[in-house]
Amino acid sequence: MSLLIRNARILTLAQGARPRRGKELGDLGIIPSGAVLVADGKIVAAGDKVEAPADAEIIDAQGRVLMPGFVDCHTHACWAGDRLDEWEMKLRGVPYLEILKKGGGIHATVKAVREATQKQLAASLRDRLGVMLREGTTTVEVKSGYGLNTENEMKMLRAIRRAAAEWPGTVAATALIGHAFEGELEEYVRMVVKDMLPEVAKEFPDIAVDAYCEEGAWSVEACVRLFEKARKHHPIRVHADQFNSLGMVPEAVRLHARSVDHLEASTKKDLILLAQSPTCGVILPCTGLHTDQRFTRSRLFIQEGGALALATNCNPGTSPTHSMPLAIATAVRFCGLTPAEAITAATVNGAAVLGLTDRGTIAPGQRADLILLHHKDERTLAYELGGNPVDTVICGGQKIA
Amino acid sequence: MSLLIRNARILTLAQGARPRRGKELGDLGIIPSGAVLVADGKIVAAGDKVEAPADAEIIDAQGRVLMPGFVDCHTHACWAGDRLDEWEMKLRGVPYLEILKKGGGIHATVKAVREATQKQLAASLRDRLGVMLREGTTTVEVKSGYGLNTENEMKMLRAIRRAAAEWPGTVAATALIGHAFEGELEEYVRMVVKDMLPEVAKEFPDIAVDAYCEEGAWSVEACVRLFEKARKHHPIRVHADQFNSLGMVPEAVRLHARSVDHLEASTKKDLILLAQSPTCGVILPCTGLHTDQRFTRSRLFIQEGGALALATNCNPGTSPTHSMPLAIATAVRFCGLTPAEAITAATVNGAAVLGLTDRGTIAPGQRADLILLHHKDERTLAYELGGNPVDTVICGGQKIA
Repeated sequence: MSLLIRNARILTLAQGARPRRGKELGDLGIIPSGAVLVADGKIVAAGDKVEAPADAEIIDAQGRVLMPGFVDCHTHACWAGDRLDEWEMKLRGVPYLEILKKGGGIHATVKAVREATQKQLAASLRDRLGVMLREGTTTVEVKSGYGLNTENEMKMLRAIRRAAAEWPGTVAATALIGHAFEGELEEYVRMVVKDMLPEVAKEFPDIAVDAYCEEGAWSVEACVRLFEKARKHHPIRVHADQFNSLGMVPEAVRLHARSVDHLEASTKKDLILLAQSPTCGVILPCTGLHTDQRFTRSRLFIQEGGALALATNCNPGTSPTHSMPLAIATAVRFCGLTPAEAITAATVNGAAVLGLTDRGTIAPGQRADLILLHHKDERTLAYELGGNPVDTVICGGQKIA
Repeated sequence: MSLLIRNARILTLAQGARPRRGKELGDLGIIPSGAVLVADGKIVAAGDKVEAPADAEIIDAQGRVLMPGFVDCHTHACWAGDRLDEWEMKLRGVPYLEILKKGGGIHATVKAVREATQKQLAASLRDRLGVMLREGTTTVEVKSGYGLNTENEMKMLRAIRRAAAEWPGTVAATALIGHAFEGELEEYVRMVVKDMLPEVAKEFPDIAVDAYCEEGAWSVEACVRLFEKARKHHPIRVHADQFNSLGMVPEAVRLHARSVDHLEASTKKDLILLAQSPTCGVILPCTGLHTDQRFTRSRLFIQEGGALALATNCNPGTSPTHSMPLAIATAVRFCGLTPAEAITAATVNGAAVLGLTDRGTIAPGQRADLILLHHKDERTLAYELGGNPVDTVICGGQKIA
């Protein structure tokens, strides 16, 4: 059976399956009034005039916006427990790094994740994936990282795989095996490189490997040690410069990381270096909105030709949101992106960060992950705050109820 | 037919149908595990143990939060057109008062409203009311104010009445007949007092009367002139101190206004005066989130014993949101409210601003406007950003699909 969505304002983003850089981010490849034909889970045709089989199911978009499903390329959506008590501390003004030292922050979630079974972790992730899909996210990256030992990191990665298998969208798992540490950092890094990485690689051979480079977490040296080993078989990604600029950006560029994420505290020099490299920058503005109103200087990064992606950073401590529309609305208000740039960063550029070239654009042969908005002007996606602007989600060619 | 919602964490807010002041705002009157029985559109019983008729429909809340529907006591949800082009100007840094002078801002909406028919206005308002209901708002105040002449103000008020008649929730209309002006202010005020107010009063005898006191809009003197006349037959409300503290607060208190709304630029002295008066203060933090990150000093107002309410200010220019959950999440992050205070401000205190004593609490005899959240901890309502935390809405005793 095929499906025709007609009478739509189509954001194709179809200038080839590659990350958009600098000025290219502003080009949505708009067909002001056209149709998209879907069959066998893929896009067959998109244009002003599209021929459809007589038995095709028809959706009349009534002039509303049809665009690629969101690709949320940075989340920590697999967790157990909650951090509401800790949040009340934060509202009273206690800084994150201090809560971290007190055994709060990530350590509270580590404790809860260790106590949870694989099945419980998968079930709570599946609930979150359900919310995400209704809000238009059809591909999502989910990181491990709350295990802090081989057994529990493997449990998380298996839980992610289990939840993914029951979800119509696509989950890209990432092994965040450098998220934090217990005991001495040096000894912990040695264990990760010697034991954890090979264990992960055996069961998840192509998985991306990630680390959190920050004071109190992994040092630049520790990250480099992990990445020098991991990069032979895995794409690498890194959280850098969230609170402090430690010099991770040049190393990530040198090591051909797929992305550097956060960048709120990056120096101008590092932002320019990253912008001019093949490595993508990923901004996570909902974290600034939730916590300390610190945001990445994204305008500079785009002006210097950078490939920028946008993600929710969905996690229980610093970004309590499942909503890519909110990430877009926040990026526009606080990071200086235009609505068009934010849409590109939330679709095709997110896919590029995940190494996926079969989505994030509307073109023949692409996976049919599409969303129909309630609105006729795509700027409304960035303009409206809260709620859900998505009317209909089509995921792998299937209309989601 | 009756309806029993059982196994719920119930926020009754039931300490009498009156505005909560100061410390009282933090008391949600929680029944940790109980049930609520509804029949004939009203709450029959609420408690740990509730007897129900054998044929009652049962909803098992599974430990999740059941609370009164939101009362959004300040919106401009009746409008035509959009202001997306103007918003792009704002994103480039042009201030609101300058856009106003250029014939943008409210004047752009006035033009579109005048060109729209009553039926068109009612239809677009009905769409917005539908979104609001799904996000848990069961009572909403909607202001006129984009007509700027008697004919068009009447058209707006009739459109609001028409949309209200087709909506399961309750719409409280407000005649915002002092929103802006054309020509000379003094002459315009004379026309409003002499012609417009009597016209409005004839068809809407009990309606609240409102004005926007600000530089470039209505002066304190103009507002006082309108209110001195209007207060004999109508409750009065006023927008004051959004950008400039002009001295409207003491006048509003003297005139026994039901509320003063905005208050971002209020002096400490005026906030204390208002807090110690019977007049409610209404905060509209989504406006600060959308525009200039200026927020009301709400902590001071509550500490001084003020009766604080919270609303979306839904409008096409300065608060593009329908979402009371977002208003709560924003008030907690940017105005220093606790989650409990924000919930009180969004329910029973909103009802008080509208003079409604039959809602905003869960107690026998109250209107059965209830919402069941997806969550077991009401703090999640304030914690999560974006999306819709509301699972089931019961409005006037009817479960909304």
